[in-house]
Amino acid sequence: MATRIGKTTLVFSNKPSVIGYGSVVGKKEFEGPLSGEFDTHDFDSRFGEKSFEKAESRMQKIAVETALRKCSMSENDIDVIFAGDLLNQCVGSSFGLRAMNIPFAGIYGACSTMTLGLILASLCVDSGAANTAAAVTSSHFCSAERQYRFPLEYGSVRPQSSQWTVTGAGATILSISRNKPYIDRAAFGKIADLGVKDANNMGAAMAPSAASTLLSFFKDTGSAPDCYDAIITGDLGKVGSELLYILTEQNGVRIREKHIDCGLMIYNLKSQDVHSGGSGCGCSASVLNSYVFHMFEKGKYKNILFMSTGALLSPTSTMQGESIPGITHLVNIRI
Amino acid sequence: MATRIGKTTLVFSNKPSVIGYGSVVGKKEFEGPLSGEFDTHDFDSRFGEKSFEKAESRMQKIAVETALRKCSMSENDIDVIFAGDLLNQCVGSSFGLRAMNIPFAGIYGACSTMTLGLILASLCVDSGAANTAAAVTSSHFCSAERQYRFPLEYGSVRPQSSQWTVTGAGATILSISRNKPYIDRAAFGKIADLGVKDANNMGAAMAPSAASTLLSFFKDTGSAPDCYDAIITGDLGKVGSELLYILTEQNGVRIREKHIDCGLMIYNLKSQDVHSGGSGCGCSASVLNSYVFHMFEKGKYKNILFMSTGALLSPTSTMQGESIPGITHLVNIRI
Repeated sequence: MATRIGKTTLVFSNKPSVIGYGSVVGKKEFEGPLSGEFDTHDFDSRFGEKSFEKAESRMQKIAVETALRKCSMSENDIDVIFAGDLLNQCVGSSFGLRAMNIPFAGIYGACSTMTLGLILASLCVDSGAANTAAAVTSSHFCSAERQYRFPLEYGSVRPQSSQWTVTGAGATILSISRNKPYIDRAAFGKIADLGVKDANNMGAAMAPSAASTLLSFFKDTGSAPDCYDAIITGDLGKVGSELLYILTEQNGVRIREKHIDCGLMIYNLKSQDVHSGGSGCGCSASVLNSYVFHMFEKGKYKNILFMSTGALLSPTSTMQGESIPGITHLVNIRI
Repeated sequence: MATRIGKTTLVFSNKPSVIGYGSVVGKKEFEGPLSGEFDTHDFDSRFGEKSFEKAESRMQKIAVETALRKCSMSENDIDVIFAGDLLNQCVGSSFGLRAMNIPFAGIYGACSTMTLGLILASLCVDSGAANTAAAVTSSHFCSAERQYRFPLEYGSVRPQSSQWTVTGAGATILSISRNKPYIDRAAFGKIADLGVKDANNMGAAMAPSAASTLLSFFKDTGSAPDCYDAIITGDLGKVGSELLYILTEQNGVRIREKHIDCGLMIYNLKSQDVHSGGSGCGCSASVLNSYVFHMFEKGKYKNILFMSTGALLSPTSTMQGESIPGITHLVNIRI
């Protein structure tokens, strides 16, 4: 059973716990600082498939299969899977998982998808709607570039505020368990749109929603940055992280010492030519389901906030002159 | 608290009830057989906006505002809203609801979105994660045609198996209440893909998933078509409905006498040139949140199955030679 505290915070009473997780990345991500953390990688980022979209679907399947293997489960043991991605009509998920015999709930949160899926899977497990539930998401640099921006062959110049879409996927399996990291509290984010229109500056578009979700959570729970081992955002990058510091400090909350961003961890910003950092659903998904859960296993994390950040734009909305709505969902993971 | 029966069926114990609902449609839908049922319509289907995509967003907002007004609530009373649509990156929802101060959970189920949203909103209300939760979705003929098929100006010929995307939206608000229709049981669907590749024959692509979800539900619950006042599918149309009869009858279950399809109800098939019937997220959403709930109010429905059907394709997947995965979610609504 879930209870509500404050305006937007949920508290789960039955400890929906991380019993399995899996990550898969492409070549560039494997060459980055987290290289040794990922379960699987592929050297040409095609994963044996004929198109980038099919490669993305394949990554989702691999991530789920890896997570299942780690907890010695089969697809028949999963009562529901929450899945989504950045591709039009979320085909990364539907084609990736269609051969699996798992009840399928499609979600769309742009790059906030991993956390959105975790919240919904937690709800199912906590309430008894599922004994075991899963969440998975993915992104692929090549499928995202040609869909959102330009075909790769065009060779467009990318401004310094732009981010590099992670080729990667991550899957988490939740069930009631003991001695595993569990989702203690969570919050669905609200859409925040301060009028940023630059599709090459997602960090700026997403930072206001990250600040809003985080400040609400602190208020609802009466907690502060010091209560947590880390406050991890999805893909704010350099620009967005700086803006998050400014927006939270305007409200008297200082998170610099606790904050890390998956988009800043997954690449070497100095040598990998990714400008403001990594982005994409696969960014927070692959880092959560490798480095972050490894930190729990090593005993270095005991209590963290994990917040995937999403920019809810489409090429059509941008062409019609719209600004970029941002959204940030939050989970509090403890052991 | 939710319990599970059989393989995929959820039973809610706290009666998440329909306390408010709203529907909005375009010109063609208002000229159809359900004309008098809808709350709002617009004569040029633009709803005062400059683009079809913005018109679709506007419809979602109107649907939610209508539903709120009917239960004398404001947006601040809603703890979470589940929203999705057919547009790339679901911009119908994110732009339609961005100005509302409501925690936002994006979902993607293609035309199954209304039922998917209802299940998740029910889960939140039933488990205590929300006091009040909402679900909304939309589709627009003009935004869907140019995104999925051809620009309207092209004037392409449509085969007889094709369906007409409904211009419409529907919103439902759920809370614990008495003497209102409530979501008693539900099931997340599994993806079914029997290899149909014709994007002009969605009914055939979706029918196998509808049969699978319905047969599982009957098996899990030990119930039969006779137990229900109606078995309502979303948008199988003429072709898909016939296939559903064949597929269920192969398993000894006859639903013909109980079955109606929102896609066959919303238009006059003889005079409105819609070929196999209506389709789109807005089809089941606008019919549920008008005709179906009115039937409960009139006392003509006491116990129904409502199943929105979705085709999880994208233009890209079709161009890459993929078949069309179908999905059908189910809710059992009673009073």
